[in-house]
Amino acid sequence: MLRDHVAAQGFMRLVGAELESISPGACVLSVARRPEVLQQYGMFHGGVTAFLIDNGTTLAACTLVGPGQGGLTAEYKLNLLAPAVGDRLVCRARVLRPGKTLSVVTADVYSVANGTEKHCATALATIAIVDLGGLPPVPKRG
Amino acid sequence: MLRDHVAAQGFMRLVGAELESISPGACVLSVARRPEVLQQYGMFHGGVTAFLIDNGTTLAACTLVGPGQGGLTAEYKLNLLAPAVGDRLVCRARVLRPGKTLSVVTADVYSVANGTEKHCATALATIAIVDLGGLPPVPKRG
Amino acid sequence: MLRDHVAAQGFMRLVGAELESISPGACVLSVARRPEVLQQYGMFHGGVTAFLIDNGTTLAACTLVGPGQGGLTAEYKLNLLAPAVGDRLVCRARVLRPGKTLSVVTADVYSVANGTEKHCATALATIAIVDLGGLPPVPKRG
Amino acid sequence: MLRDHVAAQGFMRLVGAELESISPGACVLSVARRPEVLQQYGMFHGGVTAFLIDNGTTLAACTLVGPGQGGLTAEYKLNLLAPAVGDRLVCRARVLRPGKTLSVVTADVYSVANGTEKHCATALATIAIVDLGGLPPVPKRG
Repeated sequence: MLRDHVAAQGFMRLVGAELESISPGACVLSVARRPEVLQQYGMFHGGVTAFLIDNGTTLAACTLVGPGQGGLTAEYKLNLLAPAVGDRLVCRARVLRPGKTLSVVTADVYSVANGTEKHCATALATIAIVDLGGLPPVPKRG
Repeated sequence: MLRDHVAAQGFMRLVGAELESISPGACVLSVARRPEVLQQYGMFHGGVTAFLIDNGTTLAACTLVGPGQGGLTAEYKLNLLAPAVGDRLVCRARVLRPGKTLSVVTADVYSVANGTEKHCATALATIAIVDLGGLPPVPKRG
Repeated sequence: MLRDHVAAQGFMRLVGAELESISPGACVLSVARRPEVLQQYGMFHGGVTAFLIDNGTTLAACTLVGPGQGGLTAEYKLNLLAPAVGDRLVCRARVLRPGKTLSVVTADVYSVANGTEKHCATALATIAIVDLGGLPPVPKRG
Repeated sequence: MLRDHVAAQGFMRLVGAELESISPGACVLSVARRPEVLQQYGMFHGGVTAFLIDNGTTLAACTLVGPGQGGLTAEYKLNLLAPAVGDRLVCRARVLRPGKTLSVVTADVYSVANGTEKHCATALATIAIVDLGGLPPVPKRG
């Protein structure tokens, strides 16, 4: 179901991000370098890093909720550690403390160049756990 | 020069965001609703909100730096306050305390529906003020 | 009841902080300068600023909850804007968005010297709204 | 020198916190349970947790600066993960990325009860690296 939700996100497709893996309490997203995701100095735009963190932390939290529940971002904070150069950005999110109403999730973003990873951002997020009953239906993607 | 920098951001064009205004210590960015910037429930994706905050706070900080200087995002934190529904997202960033090496900037994001604004996110950012000499040249957009 | 809760905090008395005012959605706390609340450069310790923010944002959130409910700090972020010199620190917290399960609260801290206020910190907090039934009783202070 | 700075903090003594260890890129602080550091429910006050994080992250950053330099807190964000019950709070701070003008530091706070640690807070901080020349002298503690 989480894969369907991600596939139904127009912004995920626009950015060209991929869901690499999802498992209980964890999620990995990545995006390949292309001109459309860069800023004026030829690095990945900070907004791309933030998008990966936003989506990755929510998805990781969603792997641990009960049936009929989902997660909505309440807040997050990110620190940029190094320029996001390289061929690909990879975001690894991991639930630090799952909760009934709030889950706390960390995420780290790495830039990959020539097979070597460099730590370029770290984040700490709070995800609100909500009943999906109150949300609009997710369209199926044909 | 700041307008050139924004125009040279591939991601700004991909998202379809517009620089509405820029003045000393302040910046307004916005983006119109279209399927490519939404998430699975039909609201603006949180990553779009984060992108506006990331760019808006940096641009606002850049309006107050000395010649040959620019701003790079060090970190920010955002709280989502309400679902980002509506026709347009508007981000207003304002420098709270300009500094020689660090500037602190706030931003608020509003969703606009039928001419009415709703406060949907608030953020607090730290922008590092750097000498542009060490950065790659910004390409001119033809 | 909130005044009783504050009075029952050992740490509030240790720091010597005062609850100046509390009203729906807002709270003002302050602390006077004395050697015990300073750091090595003779300014108010950052931990004092953080304490005022922690307590002030939670109290402000608590003014808007239902009967039998209270608030617990989920998270906050603070930026120090200027050295906390002066005779007194004043923290003003204000609820930005009250919620059933989460409230978002801002706080600003000012240092006061010779009757003039200087903005020395700003913060953004998320307060979890909880049923007090599950918490230990608050001791009466004799 | 860092031990002298800590010893010169009136607030460190008021809280009764101890510097357990300090090594390149890392710092451990702790505080024992006593009524003066608790809140109304008998748990360690959130302000104590924030103080440990504030001091611990700055001290950890200071271990990696050049001669004549020190660190001042620019900002931090903390998430409370579990009630801070137990006999002692321990804060472990670790530099994630040292920098010439900014260092990024993480900290985790644990509550200890019967020899067992429980993770009760996590934080992410940005420390500004500054020349100490511009700061007031640190008094010697006799």
